[in-house]
Amino acid sequence: MSGGRLDRFPVSDAARAQADRILQHLSHELRQPLSSIESIAYYLEMVLANAGEEVLDRCAELRRLVEESSWLLDNASLSMRVGEAEVASVPAAGILERLAAQMALREERNIELVVEPGVPEVMAPSSVAAQFFDHLLKFFRCVAQCADPLRVTLRREHGSVRLAIQANVGPQPGEFRKTLDPPPCGNGVRRFMEAAGGSLSFEQGEESLKAVLLFQPGEKPA
Amino acid sequence: MSGGRLDRFPVSDAARAQADRILQHLSHELRQPLSSIESIAYYLEMVLANAGEEVLDRCAELRRLVEESSWLLDNASLSMRVGEAEVASVPAAGILERLAAQMALREERNIELVVEPGVPEVMAPSSVAAQFFDHLLKFFRCVAQCADPLRVTLRREHGSVRLAIQANVGPQPGEFRKTLDPPPCGNGVRRFMEAAGGSLSFEQGEESLKAVLLFQPGEKPA
Repeated sequence: MSGGRLDRFPVSDAARAQADRILQHLSHELRQPLSSIESIAYYLEMVLANAGEEVLDRCAELRRLVEESSWLLDNASLSMRVGEAEVASVPAAGILERLAAQMALREERNIELVVEPGVPEVMAPSSVAAQFFDHLLKFFRCVAQCADPLRVTLRREHGSVRLAIQANVGPQPGEFRKTLDPPPCGNGVRRFMEAAGGSLSFEQGEESLKAVLLFQPGEKPA
Repeated sequence: MSGGRLDRFPVSDAARAQADRILQHLSHELRQPLSSIESIAYYLEMVLANAGEEVLDRCAELRRLVEESSWLLDNASLSMRVGEAEVASVPAAGILERLAAQMALREERNIELVVEPGVPEVMAPSSVAAQFFDHLLKFFRCVAQCADPLRVTLRREHGSVRLAIQANVGPQPGEFRKTLDPPPCGNGVRRFMEAAGGSLSFEQGEESLKAVLLFQPGEKPA
């Protein structure tokens, strides 16, 4: 892990508030063109239904690119907020179960969540923890091949709590890894894990990507 | 003008550096999906040349939306940097002449720049001044109707230096005004003018938008 610990940057509240305001404003402003791009993609898919597979693929790609852009905006907002959040014991299992249920309900996306019985809570920046887990699942939902399930496991491992998320992402898992954890500095996801005092690593298959997150166990049992 | 003077937010260098890094990173990351969207728009325009005007209009709109998104990214970066720039005497006339020449060269965009002889320099955040004028012209270039020129004038007025930029922007000038100076807080453009100790206002015609910027005269004659 690179040495970019957050506590090297003591940041005043006013500074944070100002930067956060600029970023929030940018996010808000960018939603408009992004949503127009998405609408145009839907429109083109509809009127060009007979234009051939290549054209329809490009329209679907347009929509995926809009989703990716939205994810990047959320990611920057997470980056900005991680530093101000207090690290405390967080019920990761409960949060993941709720998110998986919502995801299954809303999108019929197949998600296989396996939580080891009695797994402890985890230490993490508490005020952004729910946002973080949602953000991480969204990434895999966005890049996973449609028919394939997301495989999520949460269990004890050598005194840590280990969260693994795996999906079949098609032929370029390295590209997606770079989006999730861009060199050299990482972004929202890595910053969150560093603030939590945990670690983030990846395992790449030929068409699959697995993110492995190790947390320090929290104060309470699940 | 709203009371959002920058000096209300004393911001440490470390904080600024951190926020700026997050934003720069976001801009860098977002360029990729945006440029892919632009490429797809070009591709669709090419293969769908016979698909009818409506479809081609939407493809052109896609490209405009990408341009708008890039502009919003630059705008946030300007917002973030205005605060750290020293206010000093800036050769606005020279900068505008250079930008207009570049614009004419690169794009055959018709720009009518009228600079009053002997107009003084202007007080402005100096390290971002060239970026600011470029950014402002880009906005008008992006929203102006193709065949129409941008009209830019720089002259003395009641002890100030007045810069006006006018373009025919089509039926919704109010929408473009909101992008350039969104309520309630404004963004890069307004923050720059506040830091400069100047003012920003607009004149709307039925299909035209004019931005009027008043600067304090700088220390040197042009």
